[in-house]
Amino acid sequence: MTRLSFFLVAMATTAGLVAFSAPGPRHVNGQANDHGSDQSMGKSSDQANAQPAGPYVTEIPKGYRDWRWVSSAHEAGKLNSLGALLANDTAYNAFRDGKYPFPDGSILVALHYKNVPSDENNKIFGQVQSFVPGAPTNIQFMVKDSKKYAATGGWGFGHFQNGKPATAAFMKPCFPCHQKTASTDLVFTHYTP
Amino acid sequence: MTRLSFFLVAMATTAGLVAFSAPGPRHVNGQANDHGSDQSMGKSSDQANAQPAGPYVTEIPKGYRDWRWVSSAHEAGKLNSLGALLANDTAYNAFRDGKYPFPDGSILVALHYKNVPSDENNKIFGQVQSFVPGAPTNIQFMVKDSKKYAATGGWGFGHFQNGKPATAAFMKPCFPCHQKTASTDLVFTHYTP
Repeated sequence: MTRLSFFLVAMATTAGLVAFSAPGPRHVNGQANDHGSDQSMGKSSDQANAQPAGPYVTEIPKGYRDWRWVSSAHEAGKLNSLGALLANDTAYNAFRDGKYPFPDGSILVALHYKNVPSDENNKIFGQVQSFVPGAPTNIQFMVKDSKKYAATGGWGFGHFQNGKPATAAFMKPCFPCHQKTASTDLVFTHYTP
Repeated sequence: MTRLSFFLVAMATTAGLVAFSAPGPRHVNGQANDHGSDQSMGKSSDQANAQPAGPYVTEIPKGYRDWRWVSSAHEAGKLNSLGALLANDTAYNAFRDGKYPFPDGSILVALHYKNVPSDENNKIFGQVQSFVPGAPTNIQFMVKDSKKYAATGGWGFGHFQNGKPATAAFMKPCFPCHQKTASTDLVFTHYTP
């Protein structure tokens, strides 16, 4: 596995963030399912031409930016991402109380940004030291609806870049990878107290 | 300035976090005012023996963990910190709407943790790649009360480790440093949209 592909895989399942994809062949060649940057998005024709046909989240839930903080995450290396996982009240309360599985109505959002040095801060200190969220790269969701998303463990997965959802082909590996976190109802992120 | 002391200074004023201290002499020798780790806390006798006598925040505001997310920050190097800035509703709305100065009643909290690799995630990938919040290091507050904290720009500064407030000596550099961010009402952190 190349170094780049590792970054993609790592971001796919981790960072304490939502993490939507499985380390499948598309990861090995480093071409897709990057969950923390725009490096691979939109490069394959199927992504550009098709809308998700499967049980994926294709509309951005409203008000997500005002939800509460579950945890932050930093992805090192070329991905170089900094982000946060937020949750709506239903999901947040379940996280905080450690109550799994998450009830229907739970929605998680992973906000991903480039991890950039703070010029404002570093100017004072004369050295690159502090890193803050830069340009947004993508936004990911997990929406719990045990009926609508019964085929994927009750969770609908969503990935948006520039407001547009990823394709079904792009989203397909999400569920298989999240199945590895069965003990936390398919959610990788842990609540940070 | 030594490398270590730089880390301390950097954390003091940045990370997009609250940032409470000035790069004064105590920073230069790397002994105090570390806002993102426990490396320097409790090392000086005045910290251990005295409670803040000045206009500082000496009681932890209730409910802060449920406040909303303003931004995340990562401090590289030996400080190796990962954290988040949260705000109560009054402060959050001002942040979001870019309305300065913050109204009375605004409270900001910077939650600092060690930046640690996620063993759970990295185990899957066989490489250290993903970083998440580890052990908490300290919690910092800025409380806006234009009368109570008139001497420090209307802001009360607070720094807590293991639930205990830092000393007045430790807190003294906060205000002078925050004065460098007058255009954002003494707050370093920017709202991440």
